[in-house]
Amino acid sequence: MSERFSFRLLATEGRARRGEITMPRGTVRTPAFMPVGTAGSVKAMYPDQVRELGADIILGNVYHLMLRPGAERVARLGGLHDFARWPHPILTDSGGFQVMSLAGLRKLDETGVVFKSHVDGSMHSLTPERSIEIQGLLDSDIQMQLDECIRLPADRAEIERAMEMSLRWAERCRIAFGEQPGKAMFGIVQGGDDVALRLRSAAGLAELDLKGYAVGGLAVGEPQAVMLGILDETLPAMPTDKPRYLMGVGTPDDIVESVRRGIDMFDCVMPTRAGRHGLAFTRRGKVNLRNARHADDHRPLDEESPCPAARDYSRAYLHHLVRSDEALGAMLLTWNNLAYYQSLMASLRDAIERSAFEDRAASIRDEWRRGDIAAL
Amino acid sequence: MSERFSFRLLATEGRARRGEITMPRGTVRTPAFMPVGTAGSVKAMYPDQVRELGADIILGNVYHLMLRPGAERVARLGGLHDFARWPHPILTDSGGFQVMSLAGLRKLDETGVVFKSHVDGSMHSLTPERSIEIQGLLDSDIQMQLDECIRLPADRAEIERAMEMSLRWAERCRIAFGEQPGKAMFGIVQGGDDVALRLRSAAGLAELDLKGYAVGGLAVGEPQAVMLGILDETLPAMPTDKPRYLMGVGTPDDIVESVRRGIDMFDCVMPTRAGRHGLAFTRRGKVNLRNARHADDHRPLDEESPCPAARDYSRAYLHHLVRSDEALGAMLLTWNNLAYYQSLMASLRDAIERSAFEDRAASIRDEWRRGDIAAL
Repeated sequence: MSERFSFRLLATEGRARRGEITMPRGTVRTPAFMPVGTAGSVKAMYPDQVRELGADIILGNVYHLMLRPGAERVARLGGLHDFARWPHPILTDSGGFQVMSLAGLRKLDETGVVFKSHVDGSMHSLTPERSIEIQGLLDSDIQMQLDECIRLPADRAEIERAMEMSLRWAERCRIAFGEQPGKAMFGIVQGGDDVALRLRSAAGLAELDLKGYAVGGLAVGEPQAVMLGILDETLPAMPTDKPRYLMGVGTPDDIVESVRRGIDMFDCVMPTRAGRHGLAFTRRGKVNLRNARHADDHRPLDEESPCPAARDYSRAYLHHLVRSDEALGAMLLTWNNLAYYQSLMASLRDAIERSAFEDRAASIRDEWRRGDIAAL
Repeated sequence: MSERFSFRLLATEGRARRGEITMPRGTVRTPAFMPVGTAGSVKAMYPDQVRELGADIILGNVYHLMLRPGAERVARLGGLHDFARWPHPILTDSGGFQVMSLAGLRKLDETGVVFKSHVDGSMHSLTPERSIEIQGLLDSDIQMQLDECIRLPADRAEIERAMEMSLRWAERCRIAFGEQPGKAMFGIVQGGDDVALRLRSAAGLAELDLKGYAVGGLAVGEPQAVMLGILDETLPAMPTDKPRYLMGVGTPDDIVESVRRGIDMFDCVMPTRAGRHGLAFTRRGKVNLRNARHADDHRPLDEESPCPAARDYSRAYLHHLVRSDEALGAMLLTWNNLAYYQSLMASLRDAIERSAFEDRAASIRDEWRRGDIAAL
């Protein structure tokens, strides 16, 4: 622990990095996966369970939390850590992405955004300064700049306009954030699928000398190859001594490929959302428990997993729970999925320490390719 | 443990009884509350948690399990205990109650019932023999006779007809059940709110020399006083050396009053269902977490409770989770409610052992009456 937010690299292999982010509330081992706790809860999980799986940090969504229960209320209650019983580091997004995807967006200009709540239809605004203020009220350890995220494909002019405005917003956020040695505010590289714009964004942000840098606006509908191509070109232009966070990514394969390219942090709703829809991530790939092939299968999801959800319950029971919409089905599959994601990260961290990343990635991929155990 | 199903009384105080039901899968301390695991899962709880709260036995519903995943399938998978990861005793109902309340009942006569599944509209039949067969396939430790449960108020002639048929069904169930020393088949006293019919039912069942007797057809809409009046008159006419189970009951107050009158076993969906609707049972009575008074309340539900759900999470957080329909809200409140119910049973058992039932009941009621802590 440390009173100051800091990052250090412990090992590298090619572009892959093994590091450590230290801050007063704890240390984040990177590459790290951050479970998403949208509205102050990693859905269908007790906070202690999330921690026991190896999560060093979780993510909270400003958009959801500002609408309900409200940032000022969370502050009065002692901050998001106390509120949600998560005393470890928390990263909050800026709210921008959800404003554009979930809310009724009413106005977006240089000032900020005005939007309509999906909860009760009330009108709200979010500026770079207000986003940082909210993240401060939540007492978030890593705060994100407000940015404008464009869906791909999009016109170059439109991507450029949004990227340049996001750069100006980054500067406003940096000023609003001020000096907080124990915390960090990260900038977000934008620029869509245009490498030149990505490089311009990375350079502009680097000038602001922030404590970390995210890559945003990817995994928004483009093929994986486009995303990886952007990472290939953009990451070498980003500061090496700061953590790099790929927002909203992704599948286990996306994660392995992005770690290879030098990403340190990830968040994604995939393991939690899939768990509520009967899908299990395992070392043998994705398993759909809704499928009738599991109805009479007494075997567990993965008898070698240390996670009770994977090891101790039969596929037949999981199938039954999922088909019957029993809460326990979502609880067990979410547990399994987060356990798998955290074990994947631990395996990648371990591999980089041993300079064995390529071998490890190959063997992970081999197991995925071999596929699930044959039906009974 | 024992190879034979047996019941012994450890202490009595007035009509209240402290006992122990022993069977190969474990011992049930009575008075006992059985959490309801309708479709093979106590909703929103891991089985280990249910056990840790002090449940010695849970209930499964024949109606739900025969339709999905199917009794023959559960049998092929090793029985309900393996399937649902509950190695301890299980009681199953006969399916009759849900056929009449949930399914589309098509025909009911001396043979049995024909009904339409609420899951997929398929037609099924249930006879006394088939109900016992299904309960055997599930490998249930305590099996219930098929009966016809009448809603109150009802005509005396109708109540009598259903009671007499239920008696004949009890005999058919006893024959179908045969000799199974490690298990039990319980009969069900019917007779609505008519004392003479209740006594006739109790006497008829006693002649069958069953291993336990339930009181059914109460808590179906009548005032509490009617239910307690029936218990006052009926229980003294029931065998004292066999466990007595009051089906589908009830509120904490119903339980205290029924234990006073000599009931040994209870089941009810109330703690689990209420937990999914934002209601918490506490030693200070019922607390509606949906209420806005909790929105800024940093205090836990009950700081003196040993249950983490009651002790470690703020009311403000619980309120937020309930309002936001977060799964964790149902998980925590169900946990709290089952913890409260089990602690209530433990307290009543302890009181009877010490010949302190009346004092204990009075102090429990005093705390309920004092009500929840004042709003902040």
